[in-house]
Amino acid sequence: MGPGPVNADPRVLRAMSAQLVGQYDPSMTAYMNETMALYRGVFKTTNEQTLLIDGTSRAGIEAALVSLISPGDRVLVPIFGRFGHLLREIAERAGAEVHAREIEWGTVFTPAQIEQAIRETKPALLAIVHGDTSTTVAQPLDELGDICARHGVLFYTDVTASLAGNTFQADAWGLDAVTAGLQKCLGGPSGSAPATFSPRAVEVINARKSIEAGIREAGDAVNAHPIRSNYFDLSMVFDYWGPKRLNHHTEATTMLYGARECARLLVDEGMDTAVERHRLHGAAMLAGVQGLGLNVFGDLEHRMNNVVAVHIPDGVTDDAVRGELLNDFGIEIGTSFGPLRGLVWRIGTMGYNARKDTVLTTLAALEQVLRRAGASVTGGGGVGAAYEVYQDAAGA
Amino acid sequence: MGPGPVNADPRVLRAMSAQLVGQYDPSMTAYMNETMALYRGVFKTTNEQTLLIDGTSRAGIEAALVSLISPGDRVLVPIFGRFGHLLREIAERAGAEVHAREIEWGTVFTPAQIEQAIRETKPALLAIVHGDTSTTVAQPLDELGDICARHGVLFYTDVTASLAGNTFQADAWGLDAVTAGLQKCLGGPSGSAPATFSPRAVEVINARKSIEAGIREAGDAVNAHPIRSNYFDLSMVFDYWGPKRLNHHTEATTMLYGARECARLLVDEGMDTAVERHRLHGAAMLAGVQGLGLNVFGDLEHRMNNVVAVHIPDGVTDDAVRGELLNDFGIEIGTSFGPLRGLVWRIGTMGYNARKDTVLTTLAALEQVLRRAGASVTGGGGVGAAYEVYQDAAGA
Repeated sequence: MGPGPVNADPRVLRAMSAQLVGQYDPSMTAYMNETMALYRGVFKTTNEQTLLIDGTSRAGIEAALVSLISPGDRVLVPIFGRFGHLLREIAERAGAEVHAREIEWGTVFTPAQIEQAIRETKPALLAIVHGDTSTTVAQPLDELGDICARHGVLFYTDVTASLAGNTFQADAWGLDAVTAGLQKCLGGPSGSAPATFSPRAVEVINARKSIEAGIREAGDAVNAHPIRSNYFDLSMVFDYWGPKRLNHHTEATTMLYGARECARLLVDEGMDTAVERHRLHGAAMLAGVQGLGLNVFGDLEHRMNNVVAVHIPDGVTDDAVRGELLNDFGIEIGTSFGPLRGLVWRIGTMGYNARKDTVLTTLAALEQVLRRAGASVTGGGGVGAAYEVYQDAAGA
Repeated sequence: MGPGPVNADPRVLRAMSAQLVGQYDPSMTAYMNETMALYRGVFKTTNEQTLLIDGTSRAGIEAALVSLISPGDRVLVPIFGRFGHLLREIAERAGAEVHAREIEWGTVFTPAQIEQAIRETKPALLAIVHGDTSTTVAQPLDELGDICARHGVLFYTDVTASLAGNTFQADAWGLDAVTAGLQKCLGGPSGSAPATFSPRAVEVINARKSIEAGIREAGDAVNAHPIRSNYFDLSMVFDYWGPKRLNHHTEATTMLYGARECARLLVDEGMDTAVERHRLHGAAMLAGVQGLGLNVFGDLEHRMNNVVAVHIPDGVTDDAVRGELLNDFGIEIGTSFGPLRGLVWRIGTMGYNARKDTVLTTLAALEQVLRRAGASVTGGGGVGAAYEVYQDAAGA
């Protein structure tokens, strides 16, 4: 019940135990095409280039940034938590001239602040996190696409922590590049990064195409300034997933099976229904921790559905409480990074763990562990408040 | 029965269906430590830094090269097949001044040729493939470590296609960096890259350490010329796998379970026994294709145990034969790249597919398909020759 990775859906794990097929077996390329189509549904996009990057969610971020950024490009990175720092870091290593804007952890930027920063820095790319589990808030993105379009700025976001648990629409919000991971609300293991790229992003990336020696043929593209990474060169990854099936990496078949199953389950459920499920169980967990008498961190107006941060009560030892929860109750909750380290715990309700039984069990266990640690808690207050949320939802 | 990826061992797939545990759960960090120890056995090394890169084997190559190479470094890449071109390509994108040496596909370099090239180019790093499935030959490496040591050159090799199917000894051969993949002789799926780094390589890499903003603390390393990639920055990956457990990527748990099981099965079997298994079934397949009357490509003295290339008989259509084998017999064999494209097929006997039944079935099916395609084949000659190899081995 931490901020992710969390338990995977058993159906996803079962899909991952299927035997492998050859890299260019027609059934394998059919799985790849199906996976592309399913993730168009998950991202709410019509982008042809919707595919998997073979690596963790961080690999997806780096693939997007190193392929979109030519060394020297100006990139604007508004930072409201740990993963904004990561975007800055990766953009810098890709050779960008990064202009960062930082606000207090737990808050989000207004569209006017973003537009003002774009006017000041004239970036080629805006790179911003959607939901940052380090602070538990989600940056509203719905107005940023229009702003970027007006200023001719490419618009990238990382939705690893938010996708499928919070409303997201790649096309309607004007995104050019989006990357994710399986290990949060998608209910799978870390190790595959679903991503989607708009035609405009594809054009920028393909302008840097340079087909590698060893498979290059007469007339093939050779670029004097290729993308700095071979593994993350999306122009080649597009050709591998596209009808050319140009050899690049060897697709991670088992992770593909898992990623495909994550998307299949979500598309079956309906993306809006999945978001509503996260909203309900997240609301129950929020009410529950408040009902126990704990103080919640961050701007509740912009809270992610799938994770809540609570202040560690005075006099209670962070490690001891988390250790007892894990060792005696089999429940993991998260510690924190940076300015919040040692100050808050992060409790997730996401993916396969966004369920009534997990919410109630966690609240019951947390009450017992906190009481034993000497904290003042309201007996039954957590479970009771969560039940009320569920009863209201059932009556509605 | 292609040159890989091939079928995974069902025991590996079963291990991969285990439920996830948290990133810093004591059982997870114990799995990580166990995996490091097991791969020390697989690579035959005592290197502390023996771990997994989260991505395909190509990700392992890029992690090693981008972390070892500072822009402007001279790198020597002897090329004897497709994957030598890949090493050159990745080294170039990492900013190296690459000096390549090429020989005809199907042959290998002599130690004297390598030493001469080192004298001429004075590289910081020698990067060379061990077994290249594109040509089916393995470059002897056993004398190169001494040569590199004499000239103060770091020694890197990619053993994706050869490890566990051919003799390999990281320490005895003086390797500084080695990367692999699961999808060949290790019997797993693509998507995790086992790797090992000598203390000298670790020193070079850690000299470039720069801890990322967001988790950096007072006194932590900030380097003016950090490694160009964040995801592949091995100095941070070492700290993630080491006792510091410094947050970097979110380990791909399911792939870790798979990689751990691949190594566990090999260490149980014994590395030398595993190599002998590949030698036996590879010898049977070689005798079998020769018994059918097919001509084998490449230097047989340096043939890899786990893959053989045969010339496509005159008058036979490449795609039609491979299509019939796949669609009617459920057996995949491989086509080829570059100068060998359309000229040879590549047939593998590796990992879970290094078995008597797979060898005999493939030879029986190939005979039928070739006969129907109008090729002249010796009836029963393939299976008969393979049986002889097995009988000789049983009698020995």
